[in-house]
Amino acid sequence: MKQEFLKLSINTKGQKLYEFTDQTIDWIKKNNFKNGLLNISIQHTSASLIVQENADPDVQTDLINYFDKLAPMDKKLYIHTTEGKDDMPAHIKSALTNNQISLSVKDSELLLGTWQGIYLFEHRLEAQKRNIVHHFIGD
Amino acid sequence: MKQEFLKLSINTKGQKLYEFTDQTIDWIKKNNFKNGLLNISIQHTSASLIVQENADPDVQTDLINYFDKLAPMDKKLYIHTTEGKDDMPAHIKSALTNNQISLSVKDSELLLGTWQGIYLFEHRLEAQKRNIVHHFIGD
Amino acid sequence: MKQEFLKLSINTKGQKLYEFTDQTIDWIKKNNFKNGLLNISIQHTSASLIVQENADPDVQTDLINYFDKLAPMDKKLYIHTTEGKDDMPAHIKSALTNNQISLSVKDSELLLGTWQGIYLFEHRLEAQKRNIVHHFIGD
Repeated sequence: MKQEFLKLSINTKGQKLYEFTDQTIDWIKKNNFKNGLLNISIQHTSASLIVQENADPDVQTDLINYFDKLAPMDKKLYIHTTEGKDDMPAHIKSALTNNQISLSVKDSELLLGTWQGIYLFEHRLEAQKRNIVHHFIGD
Repeated sequence: MKQEFLKLSINTKGQKLYEFTDQTIDWIKKNNFKNGLLNISIQHTSASLIVQENADPDVQTDLINYFDKLAPMDKKLYIHTTEGKDDMPAHIKSALTNNQISLSVKDSELLLGTWQGIYLFEHRLEAQKRNIVHHFIGD
Repeated sequence: MKQEFLKLSINTKGQKLYEFTDQTIDWIKKNNFKNGLLNISIQHTSASLIVQENADPDVQTDLINYFDKLAPMDKKLYIHTTEGKDDMPAHIKSALTNNQISLSVKDSELLLGTWQGIYLFEHRLEAQKRNIVHHFIGD
């Protein structure tokens, strides 16, 4: 049984879903992973990871709008406001979604459903560099 | 160290929590797993997986009602409406809960708390067939 | 490849975030874990686990206040009220956050970001004893 690590960096430009399914699958293929567990974690608390529909891009727009309404960028609502009106809502959105996702690899295939993609969900307004750790354990 | 996979299919009939703790434990026993990690993932983005209380069924009713109020089935709120009034709320509920859960197995026991059960949380109104992948890695 | 387990108990006193990052790192060091996956799960459905910012404590206060508004302690809103006004909101907050988190260990280091800490998020008002299972698989 072996283990491999990859630090994937994604430069974000505002609140959006950034898909990285292809980079993940490329890494699996390049390393010839057969069966194992792939743990993906984000090293930030103002952006998150989600598995979502990759078919209709309107789903992503609706998700962004929904979370913006659920955790409004209104400084009057929060104590922690020194890092900007979008920072505390970003922490909340992070708590409501995921910091990490574990996916299974079987017979060299990442076991995602037909309409599933893996996304970095950026919650900050300004450009950011986000680190996403990939960790494979298996054979 | 060994790995095993199981694809569990559950036929759902509307918005409800469908418990499958027994099927998971049966699979662990049948395979005589001793210690290891069990990754459970759902291959859909309009239903999700949650670990919740298995004692009072009212908890499940309250959860369903709560999530319905939090992500209302109102087409005016969303752009993505072509798949029905329940589809975009289903994606939102999926993002707010989990696509996958990793559980630990120790001394042939699934380490759940006394009142914890594993549930498929169906967010669509129509009947669906849902695929839930079980992946064990351990000995 | 080896596996180790630790049951960490935390006594909580009301709705708060209780950090246990140091206990987790101490256990990794004591066992001399080098590379592997660390699965942390909570054996309760009225408290949860989150990875959040460990810099400004106001973030934690804002999180607690936010979740209290999102799932209000108002018995009129729920059917399940026999365990107190805070119990059903606690189950909801648990569903909205996490029962378990998988973290990666590389070169004897827990791969958290600079500002990330691991927290038990207590949702009940009364004092509780919470069990948090740590499970390491790796070398």
